[in-house]
Amino acid sequence: MEIRTAAVLGLGLIGGSVARDLAALGVRVLGYDRDPCAVAAAREDGVLAGELPPDLRGIGEADVIVLAAPVSATPPLLGRVARHAVRARLITDVGSTKASTVAAAEAVGVGSRFVGSHPLAGDHRSGWVASRTGLFGGARVFLCPAQRAGAEAVALAEQLWAVLGAQTETLPADEHDRRLAWTSHLPQIVATALAVTLGETGIARADLGSGGRDTTRLSGSDPTMWTDIALDNGDALADALDAMQARIEAARAGVRSRDAAEIHAFFRAGRAWFYDGQT
Amino acid sequence: MEIRTAAVLGLGLIGGSVARDLAALGVRVLGYDRDPCAVAAAREDGVLAGELPPDLRGIGEADVIVLAAPVSATPPLLGRVARHAVRARLITDVGSTKASTVAAAEAVGVGSRFVGSHPLAGDHRSGWVASRTGLFGGARVFLCPAQRAGAEAVALAEQLWAVLGAQTETLPADEHDRRLAWTSHLPQIVATALAVTLGETGIARADLGSGGRDTTRLSGSDPTMWTDIALDNGDALADALDAMQARIEAARAGVRSRDAAEIHAFFRAGRAWFYDGQT
Repeated sequence: MEIRTAAVLGLGLIGGSVARDLAALGVRVLGYDRDPCAVAAAREDGVLAGELPPDLRGIGEADVIVLAAPVSATPPLLGRVARHAVRARLITDVGSTKASTVAAAEAVGVGSRFVGSHPLAGDHRSGWVASRTGLFGGARVFLCPAQRAGAEAVALAEQLWAVLGAQTETLPADEHDRRLAWTSHLPQIVATALAVTLGETGIARADLGSGGRDTTRLSGSDPTMWTDIALDNGDALADALDAMQARIEAARAGVRSRDAAEIHAFFRAGRAWFYDGQT
Repeated sequence: MEIRTAAVLGLGLIGGSVARDLAALGVRVLGYDRDPCAVAAAREDGVLAGELPPDLRGIGEADVIVLAAPVSATPPLLGRVARHAVRARLITDVGSTKASTVAAAEAVGVGSRFVGSHPLAGDHRSGWVASRTGLFGGARVFLCPAQRAGAEAVALAEQLWAVLGAQTETLPADEHDRRLAWTSHLPQIVATALAVTLGETGIARADLGSGGRDTTRLSGSDPTMWTDIALDNGDALADALDAMQARIEAARAGVRSRDAAEIHAFFRAGRAWFYDGQT
């Protein structure tokens, strides 16, 4: 791989796992995190070769820069990256929404080197403590190049994720965000809404069977990260929630009126979807 | 164990697994299923010592009778059981709702020997092919004795599930049904509603990440079984769906209006519930 030095900004589950994998591959990893304890832990674990200061001076040494901060913290971070990233051939991020981050990269003048990434590899845990090597093995990663991103940056982004074991799929940032509103953000809100509903009725997660625990597993996700995502992708997500609300309402009406045909059709449709069109 | 001969009526995931475990423990198992192929498979697998005809003549030999048919098929089955079960000291079932089944057992005159069971051990698979030994190891089983159930029947029900490795908890049938509306039936409807919503938007399960796949896993459940449950426990379930609908509506409004405080409080509440009150 042509990456000698990488900078990872944000050492949580995703950033920490990128840093671990790159270090294991022999890449020199420079790290930054708002939380000094995360940096200290990453140094103790032998992952970081060096630490970057808050103004990111020193990031000029990096060939590749990975922003792994919450979506709302990424634009200001990009401003600091742009001032010092003299050598980087690829600047990328790992956020769950892409349009606003790609736009921010273009606004600070790093569009030609910016390819947004969204690895589908998170779970409900967070922080350096949750990071691990091999997190991206077999994972899908969406790539959203800035409009004027150069071929080298795109190739380097593909290479970066390939060496981490992931499969990449390239699509425009706005299309990514519309799609993820349904495939990721809607399930998250649904799981949280179910969790809150159960909590208000005095039911604990331990009271559920394995099915209910699966359905609510995402409710353990990081509230700050998800608030950012919901705010950043609000319109597409609200549209998805409209559709979900209509479905719940129809199911409620069918159950209340004991409409056996309607209820059976509803469960049949769910099962057909589960088995991908095979009933 | 004092059980020499058991009859298992319905050889699906739950009934089949009960039959497998009992046979492995040396109990003589007589089986019945509407589907002759399920009976044939259970005989081929060496689980059944004998087969019962549709009128259940021959069930008089059984010390324990386990009804493992869909909830709606259980009352007519109980009528046939009552006619022939001369020797059984325990008649139980494994359905997900309990009030109507306990009432049906009392109506056909087997209340003194009837203790309803609800093992929390199902998953989205079904049929004999999904059954396995050890399914109930560590599982919780709710016991709902009929009002005039004798101490011997209750003790035998506790013993039956204990030897299958489960932990029992006894509670009145109507209380069971109200509780399960929230802990089991609501998550099922939510998972199906999400599945149907995604399906209508052209999104396949393979398009989801691991979180979304978990949230929708229950949508693969048996439509006929769940239609029965929803019809049988309709009022309690509709109440739970009212609460869920209000939560989705509030989340949708918060997202649409970009209410950061509201959205953050929502995700925080979900996470606090996930970690059982610890934030």
